[in-house]
Amino acid sequence: MTDIDARYASLLALLKDIANINAAKNALEWDMETKMPSGAGEARGAVIGCLASLAHAKLTSDEFEDAIAPLAELRELGRLAKDDPGHAIVGHAWKEFDRARKLPTKFVAELEELQAASHHVWAEARKASDWKAFSPNLSRIIAMKREEASLVGFTASPYDALIDPFEPGMTSAKTAVVLGELAKFLSQFVRRIGESDVAVDAARIRKPLAPAGQEALCRGVATAIGFDFASGRLDEAAHPFMTRLHPGDIRLTTRYDGGHLLDGLYSVIHEAGHGMYEQGLPDELYGTPAGEAPSFGLHESQSRLWENMVGRSLPFCRWLIRHCAGEGIRFDDGVMPFWRALNAVTPSLIRVDADEVTYNLHICLRFEIERELIEGRLEVADVPAAWNAQVREYFGLEVPDDAHGALQDVHWSGGAFGYFPSYAIGNLYAAQFYAAAERALPSMEQDFARGEFRPLLEWLRKNVHRRGSLATADEIVRDATGSGLSAAPFTAYVERKYGEIYRL
Amino acid sequence: MTDIDARYASLLALLKDIANINAAKNALEWDMETKMPSGAGEARGAVIGCLASLAHAKLTSDEFEDAIAPLAELRELGRLAKDDPGHAIVGHAWKEFDRARKLPTKFVAELEELQAASHHVWAEARKASDWKAFSPNLSRIIAMKREEASLVGFTASPYDALIDPFEPGMTSAKTAVVLGELAKFLSQFVRRIGESDVAVDAARIRKPLAPAGQEALCRGVATAIGFDFASGRLDEAAHPFMTRLHPGDIRLTTRYDGGHLLDGLYSVIHEAGHGMYEQGLPDELYGTPAGEAPSFGLHESQSRLWENMVGRSLPFCRWLIRHCAGEGIRFDDGVMPFWRALNAVTPSLIRVDADEVTYNLHICLRFEIERELIEGRLEVADVPAAWNAQVREYFGLEVPDDAHGALQDVHWSGGAFGYFPSYAIGNLYAAQFYAAAERALPSMEQDFARGEFRPLLEWLRKNVHRRGSLATADEIVRDATGSGLSAAPFTAYVERKYGEIYRL
Repeated sequence: MTDIDARYASLLALLKDIANINAAKNALEWDMETKMPSGAGEARGAVIGCLASLAHAKLTSDEFEDAIAPLAELRELGRLAKDDPGHAIVGHAWKEFDRARKLPTKFVAELEELQAASHHVWAEARKASDWKAFSPNLSRIIAMKREEASLVGFTASPYDALIDPFEPGMTSAKTAVVLGELAKFLSQFVRRIGESDVAVDAARIRKPLAPAGQEALCRGVATAIGFDFASGRLDEAAHPFMTRLHPGDIRLTTRYDGGHLLDGLYSVIHEAGHGMYEQGLPDELYGTPAGEAPSFGLHESQSRLWENMVGRSLPFCRWLIRHCAGEGIRFDDGVMPFWRALNAVTPSLIRVDADEVTYNLHICLRFEIERELIEGRLEVADVPAAWNAQVREYFGLEVPDDAHGALQDVHWSGGAFGYFPSYAIGNLYAAQFYAAAERALPSMEQDFARGEFRPLLEWLRKNVHRRGSLATADEIVRDATGSGLSAAPFTAYVERKYGEIYRL
Repeated sequence: MTDIDARYASLLALLKDIANINAAKNALEWDMETKMPSGAGEARGAVIGCLASLAHAKLTSDEFEDAIAPLAELRELGRLAKDDPGHAIVGHAWKEFDRARKLPTKFVAELEELQAASHHVWAEARKASDWKAFSPNLSRIIAMKREEASLVGFTASPYDALIDPFEPGMTSAKTAVVLGELAKFLSQFVRRIGESDVAVDAARIRKPLAPAGQEALCRGVATAIGFDFASGRLDEAAHPFMTRLHPGDIRLTTRYDGGHLLDGLYSVIHEAGHGMYEQGLPDELYGTPAGEAPSFGLHESQSRLWENMVGRSLPFCRWLIRHCAGEGIRFDDGVMPFWRALNAVTPSLIRVDADEVTYNLHICLRFEIERELIEGRLEVADVPAAWNAQVREYFGLEVPDDAHGALQDVHWSGGAFGYFPSYAIGNLYAAQFYAAAERALPSMEQDFARGEFRPLLEWLRKNVHRRGSLATADEIVRDATGSGLSAAPFTAYVERKYGEIYRL
């Protein structure tokens, strides 16, 4: 074994340990949200904190540096074969190590403490709809995130250093171009829908159902689209999420307590989209960064593709109504009214309630504001005014209080600046993949109407899932669709589908 | 802060990390038995193995040695106050460290590998009832356990070094005296029952019930005796067990698929006994060895006390029949036939099916054989003959094949020599505690008939649970009952209860 082989073996062993520690952390977090007794919160927090420290200590250890440094140098010199998994693994591992090493332990601890404290302050401020009560914490967080960007380093904008962990390679400027174009199209399109004389009644498909019945329906639909329950579970939680513990164990959650069985179901379709992606990742690369998703946006593309492009399509509705009837749940109006109701567009103040068309405008608004905050062109005190003006501009709505405005989302209190764009990028990637899949599989939508989703899933497995992070998100999208990130397929999809629904 | 204070603080931090890693491991093991999808076994094994290695690495690290060594020396010199928790913490931690350090990593890995491989060999041998197929593995395990004893060190018998992790301070010779006395009494007592003309019909209380109904009953009874569901859960698993993840999170499991609702219920009462003990341990000492049970036998005493001494008592049966009636489950024969049926004594070949009277004889038999194996007075090839002769002697039964004899238990294949005595010691401690509690609480059994179990639980909290491992098991039993380990309270209890049932 050469010295380089030995260092590579040692790097793989360290990465595997880190993956296993993170698997344990994921399991404890899942359990906390789904099973943990009420009295266990404090001790559980300590266990999760201990695991996070162990993983961080491994990543920043001298041992890790000894293994990665010479490998990263060889890679830099072009002496690692590009088609070998080692090229991607060393690249990702070096990036993670380098970022972690640049952030002093004291800085990280201080930021984490500030974020933990700010969560509570934000929750109280939101309850009281009191922006000023949250402002001092938010100002400190922004100062520290700007410091983080300086420590990590950037060329054009500090925002570049913050978006990178979510969307590697993406920049403030590139994001602004794509989301700017998207916002321009969507704000006009929403206005056209508002002027349409077609009224869509979303309420006609609201149906209550006992939790056991909802669960059976959700399992049936998740299985039908391709989620594998031999390698996964579905449980109840206060907020729907998906988590991979480790290969063979991908867990979805949803809630059944809403008024409406389709709420829980579409959450499950969304989370199953994430889950099928995780089930399709290359298990043989588990324990290395190459076995994971290359970006949050790419991950989100898989959930949104199944939730919206498949799940809210007309052929899917044909199948779903038949499937529901088989479970004794009847939607008697027929498929067209069902499909229209499922796709009602209603400008609203709250992001998490938004439909497919207006959702991205919520993201564009947040991106613009957080970018200006980080780049120093907007003061914290001026956020509500900027927010409310933008809501008026995009939706023609007045924000009655900050709880329904700038205080609604948890992200900033947790320091997650740079995260919001991934939601919109996910929607754009989803439309790009969907259009490419349709070109490759001309009868794909006819298959949906028959409850046959395997061709699409197999196309995604081959073109997206199985590639893990052996390529970048950009490379994967280019290879699969012939183009890098673009708003055009999404705007075309919206034009076609909502043009038909609202007769524009 | 003095140097000694700093080392003590560092020791506590290391112990807390080890406890948190073990908490994660417990959570993943619980999940594996209750929730994990079928396809996740291999990856899960790797995660659990990684956590075990991390905990072991912390315990045997130079950092741990630097912290513990000078503290252990001070303790040895009598310079740590005996009534300070530090005295117990340093004592236990040193013992664990010292044992771990004496076992070379290579030896531990080899033994673990042998045990893992032997589990499969044993399972196959049991299926085929083929002792010879298991013999080579068992011989190697015994050789390694003898080597373990030599590495750890002992004065009188290598068995002393093996029983110590389960029952600290207990020896081969002391165990032989107590269990010898117990076996002598019980084998005669079983013969007297066999000669009694009273026939007890155990089958009359066998009642099937749908799992949901069984679960509700189990929850109700566990709550009634004092298990706190705000700090605990109850789930289904293939084999009933209890595990503490960490303070505030104590989990019971049982199974509802047997033919008989009382099977699942009495498993829950047993596990709830363990669970209430864990819920009563001093949480402020969590993360140190002083916050845990001082011996397996003491832990088992708490489960057996609730399962048998409380749960199979006549006053408890009075309450249980009323409680069941409230749930729509009727036992119409009246309390005396119910109580007799619940306490039927039937000599049998299989330990896990044994009743309260014959159970300890199964343990005595195993203890005698494993002690002779470890002390070199019995060959592996001769185990079945020795086993079968002892079964004939104790129960008057013929063993038809080794699957119903020496191959029935998993313990030896996993290297758990020295574990079996804890089961019997638990039964003896249970009778000692029960008798002492009755002296302190004369109306205790009348309380049971009214469904009032708090006085007993409070007595146990004060005299057993709250002491954690601040004292040894022996000290706890002496303080609570006035005597060290003794068979007399158990034999008196058996004489009185079964004398009445079988009119001896």
